[in-house]
Amino acid sequence: MSKEITPRKTDYSQWYNDLVIKGDLADYSAVRGCMVIKPYGFGLWENMRDVLDRMFKDSGHVNAYFPLFIPKSFLSKEAAHVEGFAKECAVVTHYRLKNDPDGGGIIVDPEAKLEEELIVRPTSETIIWNTYKTWIQSYRDLPLLINQWANVVRWEMRTRLFLRTAEFLWQEGHTAHATAQEAIEEATRMLDIYADFVENWMALPVIKGVKTLSERFAGAVDTYCIEALMQDGKALQAGTSHFLGQNFAKAFDVTFSDKNNKLDFVWATSWGVSTRLVGALVMAHSDDEGLILPPKIAPMQVVIVPIYKGDDQKNEIDAKANELVKELKAKGIRVKYDNSDNQRPGWKFAQYELKGVPVRVALGARDLQNNIAEVSRRDTREKTNVSMDGLPGHIISLLDEIQQGMYQKALSFREQCISTVDTWDDFEKVLQDKGGFISAHWDGTPETEAAIKEKTKATIRCIPLNNPKEEGKCILTGKPSKERVLFAIAY
Amino acid sequence: MSKEITPRKTDYSQWYNDLVIKGDLADYSAVRGCMVIKPYGFGLWENMRDVLDRMFKDSGHVNAYFPLFIPKSFLSKEAAHVEGFAKECAVVTHYRLKNDPDGGGIIVDPEAKLEEELIVRPTSETIIWNTYKTWIQSYRDLPLLINQWANVVRWEMRTRLFLRTAEFLWQEGHTAHATAQEAIEEATRMLDIYADFVENWMALPVIKGVKTLSERFAGAVDTYCIEALMQDGKALQAGTSHFLGQNFAKAFDVTFSDKNNKLDFVWATSWGVSTRLVGALVMAHSDDEGLILPPKIAPMQVVIVPIYKGDDQKNEIDAKANELVKELKAKGIRVKYDNSDNQRPGWKFAQYELKGVPVRVALGARDLQNNIAEVSRRDTREKTNVSMDGLPGHIISLLDEIQQGMYQKALSFREQCISTVDTWDDFEKVLQDKGGFISAHWDGTPETEAAIKEKTKATIRCIPLNNPKEEGKCILTGKPSKERVLFAIAY
Repeated sequence: MSKEITPRKTDYSQWYNDLVIKGDLADYSAVRGCMVIKPYGFGLWENMRDVLDRMFKDSGHVNAYFPLFIPKSFLSKEAAHVEGFAKECAVVTHYRLKNDPDGGGIIVDPEAKLEEELIVRPTSETIIWNTYKTWIQSYRDLPLLINQWANVVRWEMRTRLFLRTAEFLWQEGHTAHATAQEAIEEATRMLDIYADFVENWMALPVIKGVKTLSERFAGAVDTYCIEALMQDGKALQAGTSHFLGQNFAKAFDVTFSDKNNKLDFVWATSWGVSTRLVGALVMAHSDDEGLILPPKIAPMQVVIVPIYKGDDQKNEIDAKANELVKELKAKGIRVKYDNSDNQRPGWKFAQYELKGVPVRVALGARDLQNNIAEVSRRDTREKTNVSMDGLPGHIISLLDEIQQGMYQKALSFREQCISTVDTWDDFEKVLQDKGGFISAHWDGTPETEAAIKEKTKATIRCIPLNNPKEEGKCILTGKPSKERVLFAIAY
Repeated sequence: MSKEITPRKTDYSQWYNDLVIKGDLADYSAVRGCMVIKPYGFGLWENMRDVLDRMFKDSGHVNAYFPLFIPKSFLSKEAAHVEGFAKECAVVTHYRLKNDPDGGGIIVDPEAKLEEELIVRPTSETIIWNTYKTWIQSYRDLPLLINQWANVVRWEMRTRLFLRTAEFLWQEGHTAHATAQEAIEEATRMLDIYADFVENWMALPVIKGVKTLSERFAGAVDTYCIEALMQDGKALQAGTSHFLGQNFAKAFDVTFSDKNNKLDFVWATSWGVSTRLVGALVMAHSDDEGLILPPKIAPMQVVIVPIYKGDDQKNEIDAKANELVKELKAKGIRVKYDNSDNQRPGWKFAQYELKGVPVRVALGARDLQNNIAEVSRRDTREKTNVSMDGLPGHIISLLDEIQQGMYQKALSFREQCISTVDTWDDFEKVLQDKGGFISAHWDGTPETEAAIKEKTKATIRCIPLNNPKEEGKCILTGKPSKERVLFAIAY
């Protein structure tokens, strides 16, 4: 059976779309740039969300919900912020439809025009800080550690399923603190949580760093980020955490009295990851046969497929399979027994490979007589005959092994794809031939950064945290530099 | 300490607002009709959502996510549907802001006008059925049992926190079936699940019924509902489940081939409950001291407050309290030990009463010497001295007792508030003096229903399921009637 997936080397971009669509993660919608997240894709996102939510709560955060709409004037209060988002805002201008008196069907009622236009939130700093103004008076009200799971809209011109959509789902943390230091600690704590999640649950190694001025979040003093590498050698920003200084507190006049009764503006952070992570997951691990999902977040961790002829064999296998399902479920494993009779085993095998189910167990009538089952792991496609005795335990260790194996594989790939480069010629050559991250010197100016982007499309992904100081010369201008930064072409 | 809550008998409506605001459930926002759900209120909603989500999954449903925006033309495809929602639609007309060249600040860019306006979803039947068209070809693709947790917007003119807000959070199930009977079974199954949830988790008895034509969902063939009674004698629709017939399948041309290869339109249901349930919960159970929350969904089930003088006593109590917290947490109880030293015990008592925490444990230095703790239940405000030995077990049974007690209390109140009435004079009198549900005969016409509403504000809440047939005369017109229906003034 052909699954009709375009191979990576033929067209990486089409391969990605094929996996997302044929792997049942998402679908295009009738609304430009908006996608439908299908049940299988949403199940994956739910697992990711639940783990992150637990991590946020365990680190003292609580959830809340703020309005979808932001008055236009709010967005304008922080100059850099509105500059960053104005070009991609969905704007609500009216609140009613009516029948066209001239028979033109349903039209927008011109009499229902809003006095002030409302922006569909592209991010919620402004509406939240306008609210915090009434919640914060004293140092006793701080810190305020709030997270929100929400949909946001950024009217992107070029969209791609999961990676860049006009509407996407995300979480946005918005915290308020009494001192700059506490806020910076919070921003880096959340970066660590993101890195922990992406590495240990998504099996994807990341580099932690800080953005340059031109890549900073609109309104931030510093933007911390985690950067991951995709199989085509392009980087992907997997999460960001911002130290906002007192910018939003000043814009919305949010002050507090400290222990000495002195008034000061409140210090802020915000941080977010989105459904974009699903795209990263697909691009980082999958192969030409389909998705490869890390066991810890896979919607289905194990699938059991029976191979039989006739009802007698089927009944016998059903009994064994149901027992296995029960044992695995008792151990918290997400397992499905697919004994549907409208498709052949080979078709099912291909289907679950396409969907990236980490472990497949084939139960054949003959094998059962020998008390064995065939266990296949999706990541390496290795098959082993395993005794039915102790099969659940074997499967559980195998899931763990797959999780570790996926991380190690992604890690060695990433390590191979970091090049240290000292000349412009090498820079261009490595970028073209190999891609990946390039560690190089830069003179520290936005002008040079822009010139490099213009020439090569490569951007500075980050200045790694704990970056060693090293004297050198800028790759483009030859001007002095005190440390290397990481360049890459990015999604 | 005065909590400054308006008593119910002074102003029921203000009492409700006081509880929501001072109980930290929600806050007003800067956007007309939109609220901020505060962490405590959101914690309550999270608990409700998680229980419902589990119920949906256990009955075979999966979650997905569809776009926030609906093209205007989609909304118009089902005639009754657009008629029902056109008057309250938030409309997106532009996708960009820009700097006013005339120096007027940030304005909507007139050049970024959408070709077709987008409606912020008031409900998602249209966008979902447009998608189902591509997902459903054969009877093998059915049933499709999908739910979505989402925000929706209905531009209501008069809004109230939780009960009626322009934006609200909800879940909307949208299922597709091969036969009318299966769809009707699904609609009533979901009604049963809603009733189970509201009665057994929210401790609020409901009446299951079906709506009359004029109260039906816009686009439905039948709307099933659960109706609850608030303490002021007004009814509140707590959830609805719609049998949509083939209306949306026809509007979006969604057909399937059955086992005999015959094409037919697909049958549909939709069903939803929203953050409105939080309002119902507050109104149904609370008293003049504050919220009373059912233990099964309370964000905090038990609070422990120490009473001490000096550090020695404090340390001793801390040790005992931490032990108790550990034991309760191990049994899955949501417990908080509040040993903050910036407020006195009396202030804390009032605070947790206001917040409706079901059980309060006071640990006093003298009591501890006698090995006892003072346990107070929020619903009856009863206090008991309980031996520290076996305290966790006592608390767990008490939580269960409170849950049952709250339901029984609400049930007997509801039973007292159902009046059977046979004359128009009695109808008006009962409505004015007593309120509640009125069981009366009606001639079955929308005209009479409208006339009764016009005269009294009472509407037909539902025709109860399994309603006994009974010959009678319409309360208003005297025309023949075959069954009683339930009237009430409603939220």
